[in-house]
Amino acid sequence: MFAFDRPVQFQDVDAAGIVFFARFFVYAHDAMVALVDHELSDGYAGLINDRRLGLPVVHVEADFKVPLRFGDVASIEVTVMRIGQKSSTLRFTMKKQGVVCAVITNTVVLTDFGPLKGIEFPEDIRGILQKHAS
Amino acid sequence: MFAFDRPVQFQDVDAAGIVFFARFFVYAHDAMVALVDHELSDGYAGLINDRRLGLPVVHVEADFKVPLRFGDVASIEVTVMRIGQKSSTLRFTMKKQGVVCAVITNTVVLTDFGPLKGIEFPEDIRGILQKHAS
Amino acid sequence: MFAFDRPVQFQDVDAAGIVFFARFFVYAHDAMVALVDHELSDGYAGLINDRRLGLPVVHVEADFKVPLRFGDVASIEVTVMRIGQKSSTLRFTMKKQGVVCAVITNTVVLTDFGPLKGIEFPEDIRGILQKHAS
Amino acid sequence: MFAFDRPVQFQDVDAAGIVFFARFFVYAHDAMVALVDHELSDGYAGLINDRRLGLPVVHVEADFKVPLRFGDVASIEVTVMRIGQKSSTLRFTMKKQGVVCAVITNTVVLTDFGPLKGIEFPEDIRGILQKHAS
Repeated sequence: MFAFDRPVQFQDVDAAGIVFFARFFVYAHDAMVALVDHELSDGYAGLINDRRLGLPVVHVEADFKVPLRFGDVASIEVTVMRIGQKSSTLRFTMKKQGVVCAVITNTVVLTDFGPLKGIEFPEDIRGILQKHAS
Repeated sequence: MFAFDRPVQFQDVDAAGIVFFARFFVYAHDAMVALVDHELSDGYAGLINDRRLGLPVVHVEADFKVPLRFGDVASIEVTVMRIGQKSSTLRFTMKKQGVVCAVITNTVVLTDFGPLKGIEFPEDIRGILQKHAS
Repeated sequence: MFAFDRPVQFQDVDAAGIVFFARFFVYAHDAMVALVDHELSDGYAGLINDRRLGLPVVHVEADFKVPLRFGDVASIEVTVMRIGQKSSTLRFTMKKQGVVCAVITNTVVLTDFGPLKGIEFPEDIRGILQKHAS
Repeated sequence: MFAFDRPVQFQDVDAAGIVFFARFFVYAHDAMVALVDHELSDGYAGLINDRRLGLPVVHVEADFKVPLRFGDVASIEVTVMRIGQKSSTLRFTMKKQGVVCAVITNTVVLTDFGPLKGIEFPEDIRGILQKHAS
């Protein structure tokens, strides 16, 4: 499990005064990048820029239970639910003061951005996923 | 069914050069707003500003199959899959030149933004949903 | 002069309930892209993708006079104020029902994204700028 | 002077592969919010939510000199250049490894979001501005 705090930003809300639902997926992605940054010395940017590898999302399931507002902090727990050959499923549980506000489950595929096709996880990335498996 | 074209904007892509996955949810929301704007004389803004009603998303399922890039146009078909008392499920099928790139299925709840709780669909909104039911 | 209408989107506002100031620069850029799309058969995407040319902003001056809210439409007038060898200055005057809300003046440099350096305007792009000069 | 580091996010770049110019204004705003969060116990969110006060931008001047990419960190120095009765001018100097990439100068007006009009700085906010004056 990896923990990441994401304060709601001034510009994250919508005309209803609550965080726009699409922004929660940004929060989830920010948390995944933070996890990779924490584990890999060159971070997610090194993965993208130097190794031309990324983790695009191919499947999403999400539940939104409690709205967030400016001033709230989304406390995000990232758990790796499944590790396949080329794909992995990560769960992002977002809480506000202990109450679950949103749960996002993303399946990502390790992708070579040259041919834009999935490839098998190399050892270092598989190791990172295993470290945060539930 | 309601059809809506959403060109990819210059700033929609990410450091991998393809449309950032969270942006697809923005496209879906834009399509829902366009549908309401097309059907209600005061549009989604009238719903939000005057009637204090909105359609926040409570559940999402999404599949991403083919990436989009700047220069592409997402042709979005909106279909209402289910109409309950207070909630409804809308499917957004996004194609690029006939090829399905993404399918997003959102469950929305008609919500009174005063008490921030779900309410039953009034006749006009139920009628709009039924008009676009599959 | 080129005219472009940009409705305020649901997610464009901030926690103060008005359009977030940085979003006005997005509106201005959208208007410039619309101008190029209107004049060049391959559009701004063709310029970027095929010719590897773009118009990054190097200098900005902006005044914000009247806030915009969800439900408003920004009616944007684009005027080319100056055409140099490599750079040009465009003014974006944004009105709501005839009242000026914001004026943004951007200086852009035609840039080759290979070496990432400014180049002289070729005839077609100079022609477009001259057509919309004040 | 107040220092704030803002890493470029994966989704901050545009189809030219560099940080979209409008995003620099978001970085500047994030830096101002961080400054207020650092100085006021209830932060910028408390100012907005509890006191119904904000600091909307009324005038901007900006120069963009060197592009930023994913993997870069914008090191932002915030300096208060001028403190008037109701308005103040803040400069945001953004550097990448010591090289100035962008300079944004924003004039903000302390605004009561009820009547949406400027008001004079109360002592606590004036004190914060003076503390970071150049």
